[in-house]
Amino acid sequence: MAHTKKNIELDLLRMIKNTFNERVPGLVVGIGDDAAAVASLGNKVFLYTADMLVESVHFKKNEDFRLVGHKAIAVSVSDIAAMGGVPRYALVSVGLPKKRPEHIARNLVAGIKKCAGAYGVCVIGGDMVRSSIVVVDVFMIGEAARDRVVRRSGARDGDHIFVTGSLGGSGKGRHLSFEPRLEASRFLVKYLNLTSMIDLSDGIAMDSNRVAEASRVGMMIFENKIPMSPGVKGTRQALYDGEDFELLFTVAPHDAIKLCEMARKKKTPCRVTHIGKMTKLFRGVRMVAANGRITTIRPEGFKHFQ
Amino acid sequence: MAHTKKNIELDLLRMIKNTFNERVPGLVVGIGDDAAAVASLGNKVFLYTADMLVESVHFKKNEDFRLVGHKAIAVSVSDIAAMGGVPRYALVSVGLPKKRPEHIARNLVAGIKKCAGAYGVCVIGGDMVRSSIVVVDVFMIGEAARDRVVRRSGARDGDHIFVTGSLGGSGKGRHLSFEPRLEASRFLVKYLNLTSMIDLSDGIAMDSNRVAEASRVGMMIFENKIPMSPGVKGTRQALYDGEDFELLFTVAPHDAIKLCEMARKKKTPCRVTHIGKMTKLFRGVRMVAANGRITTIRPEGFKHFQ
Repeated sequence: MAHTKKNIELDLLRMIKNTFNERVPGLVVGIGDDAAAVASLGNKVFLYTADMLVESVHFKKNEDFRLVGHKAIAVSVSDIAAMGGVPRYALVSVGLPKKRPEHIARNLVAGIKKCAGAYGVCVIGGDMVRSSIVVVDVFMIGEAARDRVVRRSGARDGDHIFVTGSLGGSGKGRHLSFEPRLEASRFLVKYLNLTSMIDLSDGIAMDSNRVAEASRVGMMIFENKIPMSPGVKGTRQALYDGEDFELLFTVAPHDAIKLCEMARKKKTPCRVTHIGKMTKLFRGVRMVAANGRITTIRPEGFKHFQ
Repeated sequence: MAHTKKNIELDLLRMIKNTFNERVPGLVVGIGDDAAAVASLGNKVFLYTADMLVESVHFKKNEDFRLVGHKAIAVSVSDIAAMGGVPRYALVSVGLPKKRPEHIARNLVAGIKKCAGAYGVCVIGGDMVRSSIVVVDVFMIGEAARDRVVRRSGARDGDHIFVTGSLGGSGKGRHLSFEPRLEASRFLVKYLNLTSMIDLSDGIAMDSNRVAEASRVGMMIFENKIPMSPGVKGTRQALYDGEDFELLFTVAPHDAIKLCEMARKKKTPCRVTHIGKMTKLFRGVRMVAANGRITTIRPEGFKHFQ
């Protein structure tokens, strides 16, 4: 039977996870979350994440490379935020073609510098090599309190599901210029006990399934509650468009009430929408339409330019 | 005036260094060494390094990808060793083409797993994306005692210069299968006070200049002392062939005597050769031939397949 692209990716990820799934001294969170976490002294952990952007896949050949630099940093900040951490340092590896390497590098560096500065990240190293296509890979180092690290795997039956901002339509430029939800993450970690969190990089259909699978509990999403970005035509686009980089997170009922109250009083740093509930009645993700029809949401999604 | 390729690279590196050259909290060693160092608690620092390998530049399109996986890890282990540290964790970002991604990934992962295991490195995360060419970028996290971190910048007038192993000819396969000098680094750091160290990734001509420049002191190398790999034809090849991944380091005279004595008694883990001396009489690197002729060694080198 022919595999779909996504199946190959899932198979490879499973293989990689199994290969390196070993007892690692000091490791708090390993492969399979938004970032790895390694114990530091006391109640502190270091968070590590890597995100690679490739020409013709994540950005166009003649893209504005300041935006590519921005995105390269923003994607990793989003991962650190999704773990409930604070980004600190970055190493940036860059592959540059023979043609106009200076022009590309200058714009990349300008975008990286500006975005890193905005989120308190210091670039402390990296690598620069020749390549036939432009490649930018960011390795980010963050910090978090060990007992406040938010994984994908902690959602429980009865928890409520929320998302920040709105979903879909990032292909029209927002996938390059988006601002990661670091402030929202800081706010949420400060006031609530988040049971799970993920950043929506591959679309809510794919990423909600990741939370459901890691937490071993089902997820019920209400179709008419999904916040859609302006111009988005229908639920399908909001579900399957990738690169929203919004946060999806779960909290226990008492925290859900607290959060809704804060949102009502406009005390949250951004829009936060209640979209569903975790349940032990099934596994995976299901969506209830306004007419009561229930459909299964499979772990499918796509990335732009693929 | 037309730039050479290497000049463009040096210009870009200078631009990047200047852009991100800022006061960074906790930073012990920043951009411009084999790895960055960030203060941990007590006398410990974390070392961070990134090394990107790109198809058609660092390996051939139809390379044995187990070897590419080996090299990806080995290059970063070499960087951590060159700082006097111990490698601990790695994140691996991989760009895979649509054609046979499983075959490539399986071999890459096998090579990575074996090499990481051999040097005590645990793979704890990474990224996997689609790409038109194969790209492997390794981020490695190491540890060192803060007062034993060896930089490029600590060589002083009168220090003696040594290299491990032999130089040149790595293009015949050794650039893929080499074993990084971690054991030698551990030995040297244990018994000696190394004043500077670098791993020879771009050839001794280029890399010795990096030490001389960072240390702001001249380097005199004796041509007839340079240890040449079997099959290497003449000094030029030993000087300019890249990817030896041997260690070049400097020690004060009393440690030089101690090391020569240990080498004579075959107590060092590998061949260690005295090749020259640091001097304040000039800047840069000069080589003395057997006939007494002195030539300036410019910071030039090349990488394979470029």
